[in-house]
This record gives sequence, C-alpha cells and structure tokens, in this order.
Amino acid sequence: MIPFVKMHGLGNDFVIVDDRDGAFALDRATRQAMADRRRGIGCDQLLVLEKPNNGHGDVFMRVYNPDGGEVEACGNGTRCVAALVMDEGTKDALGVETVAGILASTRNPDDTVSVDMGEPRLRWDQIPLAREMDTLSVDMTYIPYSDPVAVNMGNPHIVFFVDDAEAVPLEECGPVLENDPLLPERANIEFVSKNPDGSLRMRVWERTAGITQACGSGACAVVVAATRRGLVDRKARIHLDGGALDLEWREDGHVIMTGPTAFSFRGEWMQ
Amino acid sequence: MIPFVKMHGLGNDFVIVDDRDGAFALDRATRQAMADRRRGIGCDQLLVLEKPNNGHGDVFMRVYNPDGGEVEACGNGTRCVAALVMDEGTKDALGVETVAGILASTRNPDDTVSVDMGEPRLRWDQIPLAREMDTLSVDMTYIPYSDPVAVNMGNPHIVFFVDDAEAVPLEECGPVLENDPLLPERANIEFVSKNPDGSLRMRVWERTAGITQACGSGACAVVVAATRRGLVDRKARIHLDGGALDLEWREDGHVIMTGPTAFSFRGEWMQ
Repeated sequence: MIPFVKMHGLGNDFVIVDDRDGAFALDRATRQAMADRRRGIGCDQLLVLEKPNNGHGDVFMRVYNPDGGEVEACGNGTRCVAALVMDEGTKDALGVETVAGILASTRNPDDTVSVDMGEPRLRWDQIPLAREMDTLSVDMTYIPYSDPVAVNMGNPHIVFFVDDAEAVPLEECGPVLENDPLLPERANIEFVSKNPDGSLRMRVWERTAGITQACGSGACAVVVAATRRGLVDRKARIHLDGGALDLEWREDGHVIMTGPTAFSFRGEWMQ
Repeated sequence: MIPFVKMHGLGNDFVIVDDRDGAFALDRATRQAMADRRRGIGCDQLLVLEKPNNGHGDVFMRVYNPDGGEVEACGNGTRCVAALVMDEGTKDALGVETVAGILASTRNPDDTVSVDMGEPRLRWDQIPLAREMDTLSVDMTYIPYSDPVAVNMGNPHIVFFVDDAEAVPLEECGPVLENDPLLPERANIEFVSKNPDGSLRMRVWERTAGITQACGSGACAVVVAATRRGLVDRKARIHLDGGALDLEWREDGHVIMTGPTAFSFRGEWMQ
C-alpha cells in the first residue's frame, strides 16, 4: 500500500509519493502503472520525495515521466512539492533538491509559491542550435512565423512574438517547428503576444507532449526572451491555457516563477 | 472528505462513491470537478451508490458523465460496482438497480463479472432510424462501408462487418457515420471482423466520445448483429482495444456481458 497525494499547478498535474523513509523504492513498471490515466492514478509527472543528500536542501525530489523514465526537473512540480513540504512545518522557504541542483522555494503571503528556476543559457551551442547564430533572432525557415528568440532553461525553447497568439494554428505548426533541422535536440515552441494591460499571453507546444495547459520552463523562457526584446522590464504576468504565472528575471540572472498550487486528493495505491 | 474508489473494466474507468448513507449528495459542480482528469480524480463516468428502492436490487447505482449530467446506465460500470459490492459480503450474485432497471450481476469462478444487459431492440423506429427499413441491412450512403446492422442496446449502434477492422480509418469515418442523416439520435459506430479462432475483433467510435478502449453496450450490439448475420452462434469472445469481453445473446433474448474488473486505487476527495 503506497500513500500518495495528487496536486496540480495550473492543471499541470502530479502524483506525489513520499518515500523519505525509503520504504517504497518504486520500480519503473510501478511508476508507469501509477501514471496511467485510465488504469492507474494518472499524471503529467510522478514526483518521489527522498531524503536530502548530505543535509543540502530540505527534501530531494525525483521526477519521472509517464513512461517511468527519470527526467531532471519540473518547475510546476517543484512548486507543488514545496507547498506540500511547507505544510508539514512552519517554514515558508525551503530548498528542493533535484538531480539538476537545489531549487529555492518560497511561500508568499497570498499562498502562491515561488521557485528559483536558475539562469537561462543563451549561447547558440547551449540551446543547442545546429549552427552559430544570434539567439535573439533565430533564422528559422518556416513561414509565416519567423525571427524567434532561443532560450535554454534546462531544456530548449523557441519563442515567437506575434500580434495574436490565439490566432496561431499551433496544432499544425508546432510539430513542424519542433522538428526544424536547426534544432538537433528539438525544442518547446512558444507563441507570445502582449495584452493591452502589459501582461503576456503565451501558448505552448511541448516537445513530445504537444499543446499543454502550462509549461513552467516555457514561461521562464518567455520572460527572458521578452526582456531581451525590450517588451517587458524583467517582470511579466504570463497567461497560459491553464492560468497565470508571474515571472521575474532577476538582476542576478536567476528566473523566479510564482503561481498557485492546488491539492486535488489523497489516495492509497494498492496494486 | 468524500472517500472513493477508482476501478476500471478494460480501461473504461470509474470513480465510485458510496453514498448509501446519503451523507454526500454530490452536486453537479462537485461531480464535474471530481471527473476532471487533471484537476480532479478523472474518469469516464462517476458512479454513485445509493440505497436500493423498496428492497428491489442490492444497491442503486447512479451514472454521471464527466459534465456532471446523469445518464441511464453503463455496462462496464455495473460490472465494477457489482464486484465492489460483492466484495463486501458472501454473495456472488446481486441486482444492481439503475434508473433503467435492475441489472442482474454474477461473479464467476475465474473472478470475471457477468451482467445481464437486457434485450436488444431491433425495429427501425426503436434504433431509431429516420425511415422504415430492415435493420439487418441498413441503407447507409457512406462509401466504401455499407450494409451495416442496426441494434439498440439502450443506445443506438450501427455495426459494420468488414474483412479487417484494423485497417478501417476510424478517426476519419467515425464522425461522418455518426452524423448520417439516417440517424436522428446519431449512433455508436462499430467495425467488426472475424478472427481465425472464431473470436471477433471490434473497434468502436462512441457517439460524442470518439474512439474508446471499450464500449460494453457496443459489444452487446455486436454479438446480436453477428448472430443475426449468422457469423456466430449467439456467443462470441470480442476483442476491443482495451481487452476482451465474452458475450452471449441468450435464448430468452437477454444479452450477458462477461469480463474482468480491476481496482486501481482508493482515495479521499477533500475539495
């Protein structure tokens, strides 16, 4: 019997198993079974809490995709885990350790949770792109969308600024753009337009996953790209399909992502 | 705090709430929230157990779609509810009462559960079709698939027998066939081919839902249609995308559906 909680951030949903006692050690088949939306619990990612290493961080978070394979990190998942662990004690700030490093997390007075998503990488070979070029004006060939900004936030992003993100046929051009020969590791594709109130509207095509309700690293890439283009002054409220996130690209280079977390239900896995 | 269990029959999945004490009386908004696959628990149907009426049946089952609206019945859901309620006691047979009547359910020695799905209706105006015709050879106009059998199993079904059900572009022709002007209430569309071992392969396009892993009433319609066409002798093992069901169109006119049920997990809804 494995207890779990189900949480989500803007509809980006997670099954979270507390294995800080090391009692469960879920194998890949179990992780895959739990992530199945019809025969299991269902989630975008399975998050497993472990003891922090050598006292660094307050908790160690492993992130697994629905196929059971481990991935490096997940911004919205970090916010959910931080909220869950902060509920255990009196701290409103903690470090969530991942294989990609420690992510500093804070609970705000309005109950939103902020997470430090680290620094973007902006050099062409860090994205990576297939050949040297200015990442502020990437030479994609697809028509009619051109001239995007490339940002790596642990994963590659290509950000297009357009007049009306709603009008983009994302289902159609997402797969084409994702597989552009310029992108040796492919990329997440964002289309962004500026709202009259100064906020940004962002729609995202995630590498392998397609259109999703919310992509945390994508929102980080967008505030970086929009700042580089002079569209915002390091801060932006970004409206995704699943809700709004507040982003800040701090002067020290780190990107801070702030948004709501929600508890869906508690359960016991018995298979 | 509302306790629930999650079960499935061939991947057709259900959230089941035991409200026999009348403590919860879930409103429509709650039902809808629980059925949401990302922000709630997620299911094809929410099943609520209530006290049986006037001693008829062992339990009353209400069936709700993900939009929170009530529907009449659900064959795979009945099998899951029967398995759950039979686990409470020593009976291996019980009556599951629904707004559409009492469905007799039995647990078999191999732990599969059978449910009496009632009698098919076969007259053109019972399907319903738009004009009088032989339901054994329906005059659909769509090419290249023609000459299907029409069966009503509480809902309308149009069953096409083809050489190779796998080869049918169901995603493409399902929506066209579902909306044929001959079908005033539209219909579920089944494509069926006979395997070398005598079993049937069935793929289904469900009215409003699209391609699904398993459709209990569809499997019932298929055994009736295949018997009428002389392809099987009132019994058939039917392979759906989500697994196999055993069907029998008994001499007394009732269709009995037999198949596995599975318990996924137990939980507590706290919103």
